[in-house]
Amino acid sequence: MSTFFPMNNGDAVYSYSRNSQIQREILDGAKEMMKEAIIKNLDIKSILSSSNKFHITDLGCSIGPNTFTSMQHVVQVVKDKYHDNNLEFQVFFNDHITNDFNTLFRSLPVDRSYYASGVPGSFHGRLFPSQSIHFAHCSCAIHWLSKIPKELLDTNSPAWNKGLIHYAGASNVEIANAYVSQFQKDMEMFFDARAEEIVQGGMMVLISPFSGWDSLNFLGSSLMDLVNEGMLDESLVDSFNVPIYLPSPDDITKVVEKNGCFSIENIELTYPQSKLVDEADAKTFIINLRAILEGLFINHFGSKIAEEAFTRTFLKNKEISAWMKTNYKACQLFIALKRK
Amino acid sequence: MSTFFPMNNGDAVYSYSRNSQIQREILDGAKEMMKEAIIKNLDIKSILSSSNKFHITDLGCSIGPNTFTSMQHVVQVVKDKYHDNNLEFQVFFNDHITNDFNTLFRSLPVDRSYYASGVPGSFHGRLFPSQSIHFAHCSCAIHWLSKIPKELLDTNSPAWNKGLIHYAGASNVEIANAYVSQFQKDMEMFFDARAEEIVQGGMMVLISPFSGWDSLNFLGSSLMDLVNEGMLDESLVDSFNVPIYLPSPDDITKVVEKNGCFSIENIELTYPQSKLVDEADAKTFIINLRAILEGLFINHFGSKIAEEAFTRTFLKNKEISAWMKTNYKACQLFIALKRK
Repeated sequence: MSTFFPMNNGDAVYSYSRNSQIQREILDGAKEMMKEAIIKNLDIKSILSSSNKFHITDLGCSIGPNTFTSMQHVVQVVKDKYHDNNLEFQVFFNDHITNDFNTLFRSLPVDRSYYASGVPGSFHGRLFPSQSIHFAHCSCAIHWLSKIPKELLDTNSPAWNKGLIHYAGASNVEIANAYVSQFQKDMEMFFDARAEEIVQGGMMVLISPFSGWDSLNFLGSSLMDLVNEGMLDESLVDSFNVPIYLPSPDDITKVVEKNGCFSIENIELTYPQSKLVDEADAKTFIINLRAILEGLFINHFGSKIAEEAFTRTFLKNKEISAWMKTNYKACQLFIALKRK
Repeated sequence: MSTFFPMNNGDAVYSYSRNSQIQREILDGAKEMMKEAIIKNLDIKSILSSSNKFHITDLGCSIGPNTFTSMQHVVQVVKDKYHDNNLEFQVFFNDHITNDFNTLFRSLPVDRSYYASGVPGSFHGRLFPSQSIHFAHCSCAIHWLSKIPKELLDTNSPAWNKGLIHYAGASNVEIANAYVSQFQKDMEMFFDARAEEIVQGGMMVLISPFSGWDSLNFLGSSLMDLVNEGMLDESLVDSFNVPIYLPSPDDITKVVEKNGCFSIENIELTYPQSKLVDEADAKTFIINLRAILEGLFINHFGSKIAEEAFTRTFLKNKEISAWMKTNYKACQLFIALKRK
């Protein structure tokens, strides 16, 4: 069972293109670190040899605008490092086949300094010819699991996730373990594919959120409210799990070591400034969650229940603000890798 | 004023994906010629040197399925010629930014033997890094003009195209001349861009329809019927011109010589077998026209008049069948070029 549902399409009120502030804060926080990683680790002369073409990909790019900001940043840092006017950049925007590439393409910056192309497909498999990518970037995407582990749905399994929609808040460690195990499988495929595609000496930067998803408990409790009011069958909540796992530095290190083709040049948890957190801006926070998760909710519960669940969570915004003030600290995982 | 409107989206009854039989017949007719051109002219060892990556683009690919057939054909012919299992193919599907890439991506053949990507933008300008393409293919696309020459709309110009929607059927030679002149300008830009993008020794195959567009007179007369019935202002017909010019071998030769970077390996008019013609199948013919032109008509006349014009033309199917039997002969222009 594939669990992929794209971010909300188009540019309407709950669209991802209008509601990706959390992802932008994560990216902004990583900008300087990415710059340092490129300056320190990228040796363009050795990886391009006589060519002047530098190939970049943004894996799991969604529909913008964040991907345009990151790609322009990578291009600019490389340009500033080498001052070589002959360098030409080709950017491959990748996301699932169900991603809204039409919106992505129509919002491409007119003044971009790279050739743009879109590559549809899952980054858990091969996307590019061998040794054809010089720099791979992946922000706010590896935490999406390719599927929900079966045992979470098995009423006879110790990992059955009754009454909850995520491992956050689950007291049973088997549940988190099932998520970890699926993440490891997914990342093995991810690294196997990238090891083929990235040239020797090429780089990969991964950026992943490391906080905020326990807020899913508020959405879960809104669903349980609907169960208690008789509007929703509890088995539908029991059979629903958000396919997101927030990897730790240790999770990544394990996979990279098992793969064996990359060296970790930097891996750290960082605590970026967050306007959202400073203002305990629960409304923006919930709308952002909706832009990300609405497709997933509609697919499982139908649009009426999905609408109810988000509306009710929205009404809890004071409670969520209070929670944000005491429990939520923006945190992200930054990893810079080099292909050996 | 840009005149580009994409083929009808999606896969509904009048969609291009369901109604591209004429284009398929043109492609089928060109298959063998393309094969011969590749066998005779392509020297993969010299153009790839030590690399194993072969880059193909389909310029003006629309949304399928024809583009998948052609691309698989090119890949297969190259594979059969070289029997080199290490060869890897990357196909760049190009069309205007308003093309429905979502439909294109979702209908990509699962068993394709190439890496797929989409490149949005006009082929009258640069799309790729310099010297990065080994084989460019362009079928049923160069005959679309980038814009309608101003003089066709100028009531004071000898090229004013009153009461007609195309140069076909126009008695005034100035009208056809205005089309030719725009075609030459567009193709100069096209060849300038391709000369930069295609590697030395790389190839380009152009396939263009050379018959059938005088049928636009039937659509034009349906519009004039609406004018005569008071449903449509004549000035709206006078200000509308279909931005299509069918180039002759001579038109192409001129542009190629002016550009100077390509040698013509083959250029010929061919008369493929046509099921449409054999059966004088006017209904399929008109639906095909609709799939291609509806967006253009709706943009100029609004959807009500566009619908009326196509419906009325459809009612003329017997007249059109008779015309097809006596006047219409499927004909296409095939050109194989090599980058010097």
